[in-house]
Amino acid sequence: MINIDKNLIQQLNDRIQAGQDKELRAWASDLHATDIAEILDQMRLESASYLYRLLDTEVKADVLIELDEDQRADLLSGMTAEEIAGGVMGQLDSDDATDVLSELPPNKAEEVIGHLENDERASDIRDLLNYEEGTAGAMMAKELVKVQAEWTVTRAIREIRRQAEELHQVYTVYVVDTEDRLTGRLSMKHLLLGAESTRSKIAELQKEEGIVTILAQEPSEKATMLMERYDLVALPVVDSEQKLVGRITIDDAVDSIIEDAERDYQLASGISEDVESSDSVITLTRARLPWLLIGLIGGIGGAYVIGWFDIKENAEMALFIPLIAAMGGNVGVQSAAIVVQGLASSHINTNNLLRRLSKELGVGILNGLICGLIILGVTLLLNFGTSLSITVSLALLCVIIFAALFGTFVPLMLHRYKIDPALATGPFITTVNDIIGLMIYFAVGSLISGLILG
Amino acid sequence: MINIDKNLIQQLNDRIQAGQDKELRAWASDLHATDIAEILDQMRLESASYLYRLLDTEVKADVLIELDEDQRADLLSGMTAEEIAGGVMGQLDSDDATDVLSELPPNKAEEVIGHLENDERASDIRDLLNYEEGTAGAMMAKELVKVQAEWTVTRAIREIRRQAEELHQVYTVYVVDTEDRLTGRLSMKHLLLGAESTRSKIAELQKEEGIVTILAQEPSEKATMLMERYDLVALPVVDSEQKLVGRITIDDAVDSIIEDAERDYQLASGISEDVESSDSVITLTRARLPWLLIGLIGGIGGAYVIGWFDIKENAEMALFIPLIAAMGGNVGVQSAAIVVQGLASSHINTNNLLRRLSKELGVGILNGLICGLIILGVTLLLNFGTSLSITVSLALLCVIIFAALFGTFVPLMLHRYKIDPALATGPFITTVNDIIGLMIYFAVGSLISGLILG
Repeated sequence: MINIDKNLIQQLNDRIQAGQDKELRAWASDLHATDIAEILDQMRLESASYLYRLLDTEVKADVLIELDEDQRADLLSGMTAEEIAGGVMGQLDSDDATDVLSELPPNKAEEVIGHLENDERASDIRDLLNYEEGTAGAMMAKELVKVQAEWTVTRAIREIRRQAEELHQVYTVYVVDTEDRLTGRLSMKHLLLGAESTRSKIAELQKEEGIVTILAQEPSEKATMLMERYDLVALPVVDSEQKLVGRITIDDAVDSIIEDAERDYQLASGISEDVESSDSVITLTRARLPWLLIGLIGGIGGAYVIGWFDIKENAEMALFIPLIAAMGGNVGVQSAAIVVQGLASSHINTNNLLRRLSKELGVGILNGLICGLIILGVTLLLNFGTSLSITVSLALLCVIIFAALFGTFVPLMLHRYKIDPALATGPFITTVNDIIGLMIYFAVGSLISGLILG
Repeated sequence: MINIDKNLIQQLNDRIQAGQDKELRAWASDLHATDIAEILDQMRLESASYLYRLLDTEVKADVLIELDEDQRADLLSGMTAEEIAGGVMGQLDSDDATDVLSELPPNKAEEVIGHLENDERASDIRDLLNYEEGTAGAMMAKELVKVQAEWTVTRAIREIRRQAEELHQVYTVYVVDTEDRLTGRLSMKHLLLGAESTRSKIAELQKEEGIVTILAQEPSEKATMLMERYDLVALPVVDSEQKLVGRITIDDAVDSIIEDAERDYQLASGISEDVESSDSVITLTRARLPWLLIGLIGGIGGAYVIGWFDIKENAEMALFIPLIAAMGGNVGVQSAAIVVQGLASSHINTNNLLRRLSKELGVGILNGLICGLIILGVTLLLNFGTSLSITVSLALLCVIIFAALFGTFVPLMLHRYKIDPALATGPFITTVNDIIGLMIYFAVGSLISGLILG
């Protein structure tokens, strides 16, 4: 890995200024496309386009898909449809080509497709553009190697060689029947081992059992889940007639696993857009405002709850407002996070709602009793007074139990109504638990002071 | 995918009771090892061992590594060292075999190694056990296919076939020199395409440029990062002399990506151990208590902060305690989350600490001004009184700016001192921000009431 820093960018800019194309080309030829893309991302558009134009066509394609979306859009907007079609489209896998096209303005995308020399490619891309976003079909690539079950090994190897020439990487060889329906697969290992008996049929070599497939219209999350669950490097995609239409490769699944994890993490941390630390101050502020605004509304709600209670007469109740509010929020987030992860890994489904809630009730009671007893002891010891100590510890017990149940219930309900349960780990649960926690606290406070006065 | 539910488990238990071994075997032979493992995880130990013993040896190995750690330990404790060595160890890849061994009691592990028939295997496993946990060496497997650069294609193919027989899956063929030093690789595609010119040397076919490697002693996170960054399906591991010692495959990298993401997510949600929704009430309670206890300490600290201030005389100040505390915590968590993700994706390093902080200052001021102005308008509109409205909005501005800077600073410092920055997203930042937020609020309150009275 190359160290990408300000000095490097400066050096490159100097060479670009000096027009040292040959040196720049030689330097780039030693680098991995991912590294070149990261360097281009950190350059101004003019320098980046200059450097990009110096790259070999094949490298250009690899670099293009690794660029940040903004930088890619800028680079492409400076190229004609013919340049795009001739220069890089031909080198991209069909799924990447489709992604790039869908980022272009519609007119330009059509123009690019029109310029694609190879008819099959253009039709592959049109085909992929038809699948709805978020489906396995939209995630797959059309490039794959397939042979017919009735072929001899000799013929199959000849065909595999021909097909492999157009591919970046061969993962598996799929076996289909004469109707193009998937019947099995050949691993490279089997092909290597079986290649000696050149006259035997592929049908005898293929592995039929346990082949995992996905329908093109199924959601892409299912594809990722299947690949993760069954340790697959490539997943064949079929249509409703079991015909092989494409394949999803592990690198795309890894990207989507990482994206999902980052998204869930950001939602749990109260960040509403997909942002990176390198984004602008405005973007970062905008991504963070929604939760803060919900927090403000909650805070004003909290002020009213406290206002209902005669706080002047019982000013010492104010002391433990932060404790009650914080604990309600914390417990709620914990409970919601466990449900969200359980749903993601399919350990939980909404059928056993009652079982989940009763288990959470157990956890809530146990945590509540432990925390309540600790706070009772500590507040008595620190001389906060008997009635306040009892109020705080009793309220805390109730708040923890309520927050645990509420934190479990909300994401399960969201999931049942097909809303992303990760939304619940952020603002909503914390804010509601804050307010309800305060209500419980002051209700217990009134009750206890009523009991003592009465 | 099979639907695993109570009915299925009941059916299987009935068949086990009835001793229908043949039917059970036939049923299992249609299933993927991952599914069998999930079913065994949900059965009692006796039924699970009964079913496990019925499986084919090869399936046994695959199922074993997919089991939950507890269930695997239970199953293995019921088997003799000889059974383990003969039954499943021979079928496992060396990395999985090493993992299983390291879970056994040390005596039994030694006994199992002693029983391994194949000498090379035992030495492979001993070798792997020597690498420190968390290194690339401890993550890799010894199984790989390698050829020498000077061999002819014919000889190489013969060797590849021989070596492939012992492997589950061939990803890449590595090319080494006579000293076993990695010089390049052959993709399956190149081998298929080049296989016609059988007398040419491998050195002419191999791809030398851009081959990414990792040293055995480097951390396993770097291996995962490299595979993700460069879209690798397998990563060769070398020693300090560039000799090829093993390879890491994408399925292991995916597992580790998911584990890390789950861990960060749990830390951000205040859960301190790796738990699943299916764990016991006690385990779940224990994993959640640490943050709650820190929250309690913070809450008591908050009580003292409020106690310093004459809350009886200014009881209306109590109304906005929840708002100030919540906003401080929220902003801190947001800032920390952005730093943690930036560090994980190497977008941030600790060299540009000042730049990060000044950017965060910008975000803090912007968010603080927006939220402060909103709350000023709303509280004035809702008749909370001029002096309280000014106090709340001014305090909120300060709290948001402070929390943003603190939330950024802490994970960066933890990272600099080699402590996991994800720890900062949980309890620590929220609690400290709660308390300091209250201090700011009451300090501003004293100042404003002093100004008004004075």
